[in-house]
Amino acid sequence: MDQPQSDTELKTDRSRLRRAHEKGAYDRDSLNAVLDAMPMCHIGYQIGGKPSVLPTLQWREGNHVYWHGSSASRALRAMVGADVCVTVTMLDGYVLARSAFHHSVNHRSAMIFGRPEKVTDTAAKEKHLKTMVDQVFPGRWEDLRPMTSQEVKATSVLRMPITEGAAKIRSGPPVDDDEDYELPIWAGVVPMSLQLHAPEPDPANQQGLVMPDHLSRIRIG
Amino acid sequence: MDQPQSDTELKTDRSRLRRAHEKGAYDRDSLNAVLDAMPMCHIGYQIGGKPSVLPTLQWREGNHVYWHGSSASRALRAMVGADVCVTVTMLDGYVLARSAFHHSVNHRSAMIFGRPEKVTDTAAKEKHLKTMVDQVFPGRWEDLRPMTSQEVKATSVLRMPITEGAAKIRSGPPVDDDEDYELPIWAGVVPMSLQLHAPEPDPANQQGLVMPDHLSRIRIG
Repeated sequence: MDQPQSDTELKTDRSRLRRAHEKGAYDRDSLNAVLDAMPMCHIGYQIGGKPSVLPTLQWREGNHVYWHGSSASRALRAMVGADVCVTVTMLDGYVLARSAFHHSVNHRSAMIFGRPEKVTDTAAKEKHLKTMVDQVFPGRWEDLRPMTSQEVKATSVLRMPITEGAAKIRSGPPVDDDEDYELPIWAGVVPMSLQLHAPEPDPANQQGLVMPDHLSRIRIG
Repeated sequence: MDQPQSDTELKTDRSRLRRAHEKGAYDRDSLNAVLDAMPMCHIGYQIGGKPSVLPTLQWREGNHVYWHGSSASRALRAMVGADVCVTVTMLDGYVLARSAFHHSVNHRSAMIFGRPEKVTDTAAKEKHLKTMVDQVFPGRWEDLRPMTSQEVKATSVLRMPITEGAAKIRSGPPVDDDEDYELPIWAGVVPMSLQLHAPEPDPANQQGLVMPDHLSRIRIG
């Protein structure tokens, strides 16, 4: 950190720093980077006249975000053509400041607003579901028992254009009140990240099956 | 896994298994366990006539869930007295089945519906904010520069009774269609968890400050 020349300059520097540490990003690339890093999302929608939040997986294809679920899902049916908010959040660390007030959370988040539509064409639906598997479990699709037409029918795929939204990112150390930097209080960041662990084979696997290489291609966060 | 005696029995067993792996829990203890493990939540609410989702931290005190934010926050002001949905989700693993259709996600989630109220009493507000710090950063409060009355004033605390909601938990291996278990396809779980990493001291810390013991008491997930 640069040494301040005076108290006034320090204040200016710190306030610039604060902005640098937490910023909204309205460009497509920042938004896409968050969506592509984390399939887990929370979708806000109205059902029965009240707000509800559905945790589910999203995936992106170009300028659209997609999600899927059971064709019987009341939640998905309530979303089609209605206003929704798709939010993706990754926790990157706890930010421990010198005062309770300036404690914070390092994070990357994306929020998209819009009205989803249902993918009605069966072939298109199947293609999008394959794309989802390819993105979340790269290389796995080819190993799987092929999808049946009943399974495609039982699945709804929703898609929404990415037109209104923003990413928000906070990173780096705490930003404290200027006078608090002189206090003998330890401040810093406790980083955190979602970690994948060693795969656990299904006890019902056929004997002698080896763990496929594609498992090592799974990424999250 | 028990060996089935017949195809019919296998079907029965597997369907019981499916229920056992993904279940809703309507008891308070299951709900509390999710809330207490993960402060990160997503709150669905209406603003400008449209659904929005706010990622923030929640904490529980007895039969109430709490969250806070800037007194100037439009989101928090829109929530007071209105219907909201507080959702907490932890990802525990990717579930890789023998068909794309039965791929799933091991998770623990909680969803609470209700109408939050604002904590208006200043002393109560301060007490709740201390409780939040004690829960998220155990042992840290005593080390901090005390909260000022301006900081308490600049902070809104919302609380909502835990009366309507449910927890949902999925764990364990995939549940495939009966006939798919004979396929030579590797199935299993790729576990995941949010991990804390070595604390990173603020470069602006006073010289000679040692890392406080209480950092090792932070838990998440």
